[in-house]
Amino acid sequence: MGLIVQKYGGSSVADAGCIMNVAKKIIRAYSKGNKVVVVLSAQGDTTDELIAKAMEISDRPSKRELDMLMSTGEQISIALMAMALEKLGYKAVSLIAGQAGIYTNAVHGSALIKRICADRIFKELDEGKIVIVAGFQGIDDHGDITTLGRGGSDTTAVALAAALNADHCEIYTDVDGVYTADPRIVRNARKLDEVTYDEMLELASLGARVLHNRSVELANNYRVKLVVRSSKNNHKGTLVREAGGMEKTVVKGVTYDTDIARLSVIAVRDIPGVAYKLFKLLADANINVDIILQSIGRDDTKDISFTVSRSQLSESVEVINRNLDYLGAKAVSFTRDIAKVSIVGAGMAAHPGVAATMFGALADEGINIHMISTSEIKISCLISADEVDKAVKAIHDRFNLGEAAS
Amino acid sequence: MGLIVQKYGGSSVADAGCIMNVAKKIIRAYSKGNKVVVVLSAQGDTTDELIAKAMEISDRPSKRELDMLMSTGEQISIALMAMALEKLGYKAVSLIAGQAGIYTNAVHGSALIKRICADRIFKELDEGKIVIVAGFQGIDDHGDITTLGRGGSDTTAVALAAALNADHCEIYTDVDGVYTADPRIVRNARKLDEVTYDEMLELASLGARVLHNRSVELANNYRVKLVVRSSKNNHKGTLVREAGGMEKTVVKGVTYDTDIARLSVIAVRDIPGVAYKLFKLLADANINVDIILQSIGRDDTKDISFTVSRSQLSESVEVINRNLDYLGAKAVSFTRDIAKVSIVGAGMAAHPGVAATMFGALADEGINIHMISTSEIKISCLISADEVDKAVKAIHDRFNLGEAAS
Repeated sequence: MGLIVQKYGGSSVADAGCIMNVAKKIIRAYSKGNKVVVVLSAQGDTTDELIAKAMEISDRPSKRELDMLMSTGEQISIALMAMALEKLGYKAVSLIAGQAGIYTNAVHGSALIKRICADRIFKELDEGKIVIVAGFQGIDDHGDITTLGRGGSDTTAVALAAALNADHCEIYTDVDGVYTADPRIVRNARKLDEVTYDEMLELASLGARVLHNRSVELANNYRVKLVVRSSKNNHKGTLVREAGGMEKTVVKGVTYDTDIARLSVIAVRDIPGVAYKLFKLLADANINVDIILQSIGRDDTKDISFTVSRSQLSESVEVINRNLDYLGAKAVSFTRDIAKVSIVGAGMAAHPGVAATMFGALADEGINIHMISTSEIKISCLISADEVDKAVKAIHDRFNLGEAAS
Repeated sequence: MGLIVQKYGGSSVADAGCIMNVAKKIIRAYSKGNKVVVVLSAQGDTTDELIAKAMEISDRPSKRELDMLMSTGEQISIALMAMALEKLGYKAVSLIAGQAGIYTNAVHGSALIKRICADRIFKELDEGKIVIVAGFQGIDDHGDITTLGRGGSDTTAVALAAALNADHCEIYTDVDGVYTADPRIVRNARKLDEVTYDEMLELASLGARVLHNRSVELANNYRVKLVVRSSKNNHKGTLVREAGGMEKTVVKGVTYDTDIARLSVIAVRDIPGVAYKLFKLLADANINVDIILQSIGRDDTKDISFTVSRSQLSESVEVINRNLDYLGAKAVSFTRDIAKVSIVGAGMAAHPGVAATMFGALADEGINIHMISTSEIKISCLISADEVDKAVKAIHDRFNLGEAAS
């Protein structure tokens, strides 16, 4: 008995049959005596369909109006789920962001949650209702609808779990949990029973696709116990928890991200403050920069390369082109033919051989490394997009991450 | 120069092309120096599609959740329209009911507007924006989304026009204005340049389909100048205004309503208070009753017959069946094979021959009259549903309402 937050993604609520199945899963948790808050994404391809509608009108719709449009997707899901629960004989209520008290800043399209006023949710729970909350969306101080950006429903779920002081937060997806590598690429990839927040953070931000990085950061900050499991079966899933205990394997998993693009600002004057100017410009445009590489100065200029998500490429190029003079740069070049492959594991920094082993695996496959980035618990290499599968397999093998060969 | 409220229905915003066309119409009004507030319905068949989604889950979804679901339709329309106006270079902002300050009571599915707090709308207008408001929806004092029921977007438009003290309210539909009869049935039906509120009220409530009765009542109460015109052309339309001036024709038009069903409560004890009990029960269930006929008592019982809209038939039957003992009645019978045909015109009561002329036209066609109802400005007859076209044509001819024969 406790308070559980469950989150179901778009494919879990794609049609009436899926919704009834999820409703039964929710009821199972509720019938054990738990208070249950459920966060839902938009059904199936709804978000894409809504974006397509917008694109028919304007190739560059305002972000406020896009949020107004897109937030309807989750609203449809939650209303249908509440109907399903009521149909099965349970009391339920659906709440959009404003009703659930999810307040964000006013950065449309990638808003940050500022606070959650959970009075209404607590009131509904106290009345014995299952509470269904629209994921992905918030409301700003002017009462305007915002959206949280990619993976926003995970963030909603974790933020609610924190605000409600939930016992744990269950993220239901279409995989059984977190794996040592993408099972679609590496056949003997192994499901992990547990990972730490930090490991999950790297796995998430590096494209493991199971959880969005913002939700893991939030879970880490508020010590929300996260469970990642499948909406299609009752397998145990992967628990994301605080570090502690013995760490037997150094490398936990191999992950990759193909949703990236590389930009290079060419022949920037080699004087102090240029990098600040550049990344301040990008930050002001709400563009998230990932790996940054600065070439060693040649004559009195240098090149600065970095990666962004593909959806932000054209805006990034535009921002820089508008400011070439201000930056004292000659040109900007870019490519989409790039991907990031990474290994993740706590304690990695203490094992100097790990990086060399990874580079060796790539070299043996003849894969060229364009950029390298390292942190305490991860090493990432940028490679050509078409070599991702080969790279992931090679690294996974080299570190013996798979199940024992059958 | 002034403040204009325009309302466009679902077929006017059915797709991107329609939306761009309407956007240009809006801009025409704005460019003349007017402040413009636009009320939109859901696109094309969106509302039906959403209801179908609900029906896949539950044959009896709760009205609160149905409102939560259905309100997304208008939200999509307004976001797309704001994008279209911005694309064409104009400042615009879309507002859902809560943002527009449209407060209703909590009767989901057929809520009544209680007050409009127009601060936000005025603020946006003062910033030079075209304001696009979601029709059909409201918000109750708990912050829950309500819908206004059939024709709700017209009601939204008129209520906003009243609250904003607009110069006039333009209702755009797919016909050129108000006709002497349905042009699809009567080929030489004539467009009326003006009708009074009272006449329009009867025309609307009797199924002229051009305007919803609630919106006309509201316009009448607040003396909102209404103009009904086509969204497809620039024809003059029909002005709905206060009575006054000469009334040359007594009968203004012939109208009909097929969305009705008749119920009869059989063998009710013939004692005082029974009718009160019956219609109080129905009112408590938010069922609108139209024509009422009470048979003359036979032995010590009587029958009470009345009509409701077809969508409320099953609920009505249920309410009565549950209360047969309480009402002291034997049974309830009902039929959907019924329609109402009516003539409307101010001053009708002063012309005693009018009713006889109407009944004669029906008699000459061999059409049986089941029930009759009269008021100051209208006479309605219930007939079999399959005789509607014949009846409308016969009455229209008999009163010479059409254009001169060509």
